[in-house]
Amino acid sequence: MGYTLAEKIIKEHIVDGEMVKGTDIGLRIDQTLTQDATGTMAYLEFEAMGVPRVKTEKSVAYIDHNTLQTGFENADDHRFIQSVCKKHGIYFSKPGNGICHQVHLERFGKPGKTLIGSDSHTPTGGGIGMLAMGAGGLDVAVAMGGGAYYITMPKMVRVNLTGKLQPWVAAKDIILEVLRIMSVKGGVGKIVEYGGEGVKTLSVPERATITNMGAELGATTSIFPSDELTRQFLKAQGREEDWVELTPDEDAVYDEVIDIDLSTLKPMAACPHSPDNIKTIESLAGQKVDQVCIGSCTNSSYRDLMTVAHILKGKTVAENVSLAIAPGSKQVFNMLALNGALGDLIAAGARILESACGPCIGMGQSPNSKGISLRTFNRNFLGRSGTKDGQIYLVSPETAAVSALTGVFTDPTTLGEGYTVEMPEKFLINDNMVIDPAPVEEMDNIEVLRGPNIKPFPETTPLEETINATCALKVEDNITTDHIMPAGAKILPLRSNIPAISQHCFTVCDPEFPKRAKELGSSIIVGGANYGQGSSREHAALAPLYLGVKAVLVKSFARIHRANLINAGILPLEFCNEADYDKINLNDEITLPDVKDIIANGGDVKVVNKTTGEEIMAKCELTDRTKAIIIAGGLLNYTKENG
Amino acid sequence: MGYTLAEKIIKEHIVDGEMVKGTDIGLRIDQTLTQDATGTMAYLEFEAMGVPRVKTEKSVAYIDHNTLQTGFENADDHRFIQSVCKKHGIYFSKPGNGICHQVHLERFGKPGKTLIGSDSHTPTGGGIGMLAMGAGGLDVAVAMGGGAYYITMPKMVRVNLTGKLQPWVAAKDIILEVLRIMSVKGGVGKIVEYGGEGVKTLSVPERATITNMGAELGATTSIFPSDELTRQFLKAQGREEDWVELTPDEDAVYDEVIDIDLSTLKPMAACPHSPDNIKTIESLAGQKVDQVCIGSCTNSSYRDLMTVAHILKGKTVAENVSLAIAPGSKQVFNMLALNGALGDLIAAGARILESACGPCIGMGQSPNSKGISLRTFNRNFLGRSGTKDGQIYLVSPETAAVSALTGVFTDPTTLGEGYTVEMPEKFLINDNMVIDPAPVEEMDNIEVLRGPNIKPFPETTPLEETINATCALKVEDNITTDHIMPAGAKILPLRSNIPAISQHCFTVCDPEFPKRAKELGSSIIVGGANYGQGSSREHAALAPLYLGVKAVLVKSFARIHRANLINAGILPLEFCNEADYDKINLNDEITLPDVKDIIANGGDVKVVNKTTGEEIMAKCELTDRTKAIIIAGGLLNYTKENG
Repeated sequence: MGYTLAEKIIKEHIVDGEMVKGTDIGLRIDQTLTQDATGTMAYLEFEAMGVPRVKTEKSVAYIDHNTLQTGFENADDHRFIQSVCKKHGIYFSKPGNGICHQVHLERFGKPGKTLIGSDSHTPTGGGIGMLAMGAGGLDVAVAMGGGAYYITMPKMVRVNLTGKLQPWVAAKDIILEVLRIMSVKGGVGKIVEYGGEGVKTLSVPERATITNMGAELGATTSIFPSDELTRQFLKAQGREEDWVELTPDEDAVYDEVIDIDLSTLKPMAACPHSPDNIKTIESLAGQKVDQVCIGSCTNSSYRDLMTVAHILKGKTVAENVSLAIAPGSKQVFNMLALNGALGDLIAAGARILESACGPCIGMGQSPNSKGISLRTFNRNFLGRSGTKDGQIYLVSPETAAVSALTGVFTDPTTLGEGYTVEMPEKFLINDNMVIDPAPVEEMDNIEVLRGPNIKPFPETTPLEETINATCALKVEDNITTDHIMPAGAKILPLRSNIPAISQHCFTVCDPEFPKRAKELGSSIIVGGANYGQGSSREHAALAPLYLGVKAVLVKSFARIHRANLINAGILPLEFCNEADYDKINLNDEITLPDVKDIIANGGDVKVVNKTTGEEIMAKCELTDRTKAIIIAGGLLNYTKENG
Repeated sequence: MGYTLAEKIIKEHIVDGEMVKGTDIGLRIDQTLTQDATGTMAYLEFEAMGVPRVKTEKSVAYIDHNTLQTGFENADDHRFIQSVCKKHGIYFSKPGNGICHQVHLERFGKPGKTLIGSDSHTPTGGGIGMLAMGAGGLDVAVAMGGGAYYITMPKMVRVNLTGKLQPWVAAKDIILEVLRIMSVKGGVGKIVEYGGEGVKTLSVPERATITNMGAELGATTSIFPSDELTRQFLKAQGREEDWVELTPDEDAVYDEVIDIDLSTLKPMAACPHSPDNIKTIESLAGQKVDQVCIGSCTNSSYRDLMTVAHILKGKTVAENVSLAIAPGSKQVFNMLALNGALGDLIAAGARILESACGPCIGMGQSPNSKGISLRTFNRNFLGRSGTKDGQIYLVSPETAAVSALTGVFTDPTTLGEGYTVEMPEKFLINDNMVIDPAPVEEMDNIEVLRGPNIKPFPETTPLEETINATCALKVEDNITTDHIMPAGAKILPLRSNIPAISQHCFTVCDPEFPKRAKELGSSIIVGGANYGQGSSREHAALAPLYLGVKAVLVKSFARIHRANLINAGILPLEFCNEADYDKINLNDEITLPDVKDIIANGGDVKVVNKTTGEEIMAKCELTDRTKAIIIAGGLLNYTKENG
C-alpha cells in the first residue's frame, strides 16, 4: 500500500507514535514561523524554556499583525521580538517586509519539509508541497527548542482537479467550491491533498491561495504536489536548490475523494458570516458595494495584484466605493512599483496600505455600519472586520477589482477576453528587511529589549493533590474563544501582556469576571457544549491561567481549546452526566479531592459542591503525554522537566 | 503709506470693521477646507444653519485624519461628509487622495484669495500667496454659509531672506530658525510675511513647508509673495490661469523685521517637546535613532520625497530603525510610482503608509517606549505621537533620510555634493478621487447618510436671565485643550458624536466629571491662569456645552479657547481679583444673578456662592458681536438669527 504525499512527509518526520489514523503522533519540525500577535508570547515561552538557540533548520519571526501602532505597545513588541531573534538564532522579518505566509512562501519554504507557525494560515506553505500547520505559540516554542509537534494522525482527503479554469475564474473560486462541498467543519482531523491533471494549470501562488484558505475547512493542513511549476517558482526566487519533486504514490489510499472539474466553476463569494456560505457572483450581481479590500495572506501575490492592476488600469473606482489594497510582501510591492502596475492602482483611486495583514484581522479599514465589503481574504466571521454589522463577502481579486469599478457585485467573466499574468522568470530578490541572528559567539552579548508592555509568561504550578476552588463563572453552550479572550484593534496590542489582556477575559459574558477570579485566587469555570470553539488563540487559556482558573468543567470541548487548556496546565473536565450542569452555580465552593492521584492513575474525577453538598462525576481523557503535561502544570514545565 | 502683501488681501476682503491693528475685522472668505476630524462637526453645524448650498467660491472636504478605521465610526463619518458635500455644493476628496493642505495647494489654492480651514495648518496655502488661516469648525460653517470670518487685525512681521541655502540644508531648517528666533508664542496676533532676494531661491513646496509650520509660531498666518515660481508651479498643475502676481508695496510698513541669511543656516532639529526647542543636527550627531517618519502636511511633497528617494536609493535602512513614509497626496504617490522613486524607497526598506496625516497626529506608528523618533512633521508635543515618553525630533526630510540609513542623528551636509530635485514641468493631474457636488437641480434628492456615530450638534439655548449652577470641577493653572478634550487614536473617531466624546471630557483631571456634570444639568467650571491653551479644537467647548456647563470662571484664558467658548454660548468669565479663585470649591452652589442684563449692558458679573454666602466679581469683555453671540446662545443661533 502506497503513501499519500502528506503521509510521505509524516513518515520522514515521525519521532513518536505510529502512523495510525486517530492516534497521537509526534513530528520533527524543520521550520517554524511566528507572527507578532502570537509571537511575543511564543518567544516569552521559548525564553522560559531556557534553550539558548533554536534547534530548527530555520525559524523566522514576522511582524505583520500589529502594525498600526496606535500606542507604544506594538513597537515595544517588535523590538522585543527583534532582540530575542538576534539572541536565539531566529531570522527577523521587519514590519513592512510583508505578511508571514506570503514572505515565507517566497523566501524560505521548502517542499517536503515540516513547518509549524503560530498562525492558523500556515498551511499556505502547502502550495509548494510543505507539510505546514498552524499551531499554538507554545507548540512553536517547543518546536524551536527541538521538541516534537503532536497531532492526531489525520485522515487523507484527495481533491481531484480536472480541466482548466475559465477566464476570470480564479484559484479563490476553487477553494470556495471546496468549502461549499466540505463545509467549515468538513476538514477536521483531515489533510486535504490536491491532485489530478488540473494541478498543472495552477501556478504556485494560486495553489497557495487554496492551501491557505484550507484552514477554513478546519483541516489539519492542505498540500499540493511539488512539480515542475514549483521548481520554476523556486528558481525564479533564486532557490532552485530548495526544490525536490514530491508526489503521492500511485497506489496511495485516501479516506475520501472529491472531484472538481475546474472548467465548470464560476466566480463565487462566501457570504456573511461564514466562509462556507457560498453563492455565485452571478446570483449577487447588481447589489451595491461600499468597500473593497484586496490583499491578505490569501490573495496578495504578484500574480493577484498584477491581475488587479490590469483590471483597474486607466479606470476609476466607483464614487461610493473605498478600495484598499495591501501588497503581500515587500517583493510584490517593489516589483509593482518598478513595473508601473502600482501607478495604475493609485491612478484608479486605490488606497495603498502597508504590506501587512491589516483589514483581514480587523486592523484598520473597518467598513461603515452595515457596510457591504468585498474582500479577497479568508474569513468573514461576524464582527471580525471591526464593524459588528459589517457584511463581509470573500471573493477573488478578479471579482473584487471589477466590482470596485462598477460599485456593485459584478461577475468578472463579463470582462470578456481573459488575461493571464506572466509569472516572472526572476522575482526581485532583496532580503534586506530580514535581519540575520547574531553569530553563536556573540549571542550572549545581545540584550533582550523589554518595554513596559512585555510581561513574563504567567506562573504555573504542578497539579495540586486536591483542588479547592470557587465557581467564578457559569456560561452556556457554544462559547467561542472570542468570548473568552476578545481580539480586535484595541485588545490585540496587549497580547504580550497577560496581566493586562486578562482584564478583558470573558468580559463580554460578565464584566466582573476578571476581578472576581483574580480575587478568588483559585477558581473553576462551568460551561455547556462545544466550549472554546473558534480561533485557536492560546490566550484564551493563558488569561484564565493568570486569573487563577484551575479547571474548566463543561458538557463538551472544542478540540484546539482543550489542547490549549492542557498546555496551560488547566484541567479540562467534562460532565459524565450532562444534566449535572445544573448542579453547580456561580460562587459555589468546589473541591476535587485527590485529583492528582486520579489523573495519574486514571478514572473519573469526583467534583464535590461544598455549597450544596452534592457530588458529581467528571471525565478527563488524557494520553500518557497529556497526563504528564497536566501533572507538571503545563507544557512549559513539562518541556523543562523533559528537555 | 503702502500695504504689506497680507494687508492687500485683507483690504480686498474686509466686510466689517477697519484695518486698525488690534481691532476685530470681518473678512469675506473665498475658499474653505475641512479635514474629517473637525469636518464632521463643521458640516453638522452647517446643516443646523439651514443654508442649502455653500456660498464660497470653492469649498473642499478632505478625509485625511481618521483613515485607520479601527471601528465603524471612521467610515460612517466619511460617508456622512461625502453625502453632505454632494448635497450642499462641496467638493469631496476621498480617503487616499491625500493630506488636505498638500492637495489644496496642488489643485485648488489661488494667490490673493482668502481660505479658512478647520485645521491649524491651513496657512500652508500661504506658500502660493493665499491668506490662509486655521479656524474653528463653526467658523468654517459660517463662512460656507456666506458669513464673514472674524479675526483681530494682526501686526505685520517681515522675514527678510537673503542668500541661498547650502546643499542639504532645507526649507524646514528655515522655519526651525524662525521658530528659534520668535518662539512658539512669538507669532501671536501677527502675520509673518516672507520677502527678500532669498525668496526666489525657494520653490513653492519649500515655501509651503515654511508657511505650514508657521502655525507653530502661534501666528495668524504666514505668506509668501506670488511670483514667477508660483506661476510655474500653477502652470505645471495645469492652472496657470489661477495665477496673479502679488507683492507687498515698496513702502509697506512692518511692525517687526527679522533678517535671515539663508547661506548661514545649518540642518536643525526641534527637540522634545516643543517646536521651538532648536538645536543643530551637528550637536546631536551620533545619538541613536529608533524610528524615522517622513510625510505630513509639512514635508510630503514631490520635491521632498524625490530628495528622500535620492538619498535612500540603493541603500538599506539601519537594522534598528523603522522608517515609515506617507506621500502627501495621490499626485505625489502616483508620480513616484511611475518614475521609479517609490521602488527606491521600498527597496531600501521603508514602510509605505497610505497618503494621509497618519503618524503626525498620533494615528499610528507610535514609537516604542522612550523611543527616539525623527519626524519631518510640525509638532512634537509631549504624547502627541501616541507614546507618552516618546522623544520626538522635528527635522528636514534630508536629515530624516540620512539618519534612517545610519541609525544615528546624522547631519545631511556630510553627504557632500548637493542634489536639487528638478520641479516637473507638468505634474500628473488626475482628480478622479475628488467627487464633484451634485448639480443644483439634483441636490434635493441627495440623502445625507448618518451612521450611528453621527449625532446632531448639541442643543444650545439663549443666555438665561440668571444662571443657577453647581461648581462641577475646579482645576489649576495651564489647563490645555488636551486636558479638556483628549485626542489620540482612540478618541478622535468620536469627533462627530458629542454625547460619546463628552464621556472623555476632563477625565484626565477627574474621571467622574462627565457623569457629575451631566447629572447636575447646569454647572460651572473654575480654573486658573492660561485656561484652554494648546490645540484649537472646538470640541473642548462643545463637550462642556453638551454636559451642561453654563460658564467657565478662571484667572485667564487662552485666546482661541475663549473664542470657542463664546461660539458655543458658554460664558467666559475672569476673576476681577485672582485671589477669589480660593472662594469657590467643588460642588459649591453658584448663582449669577441678572447675568443677561449685565452682559447686554456691560459691567462686571456678580458671582454669588450660595454655599459659602460669599460674593465675588468677574469680568467678561465682549465686543458688540460676541455679546450678541453669547446672548443668542452661541454662534450657530446667532448666525441663524442674523443669516
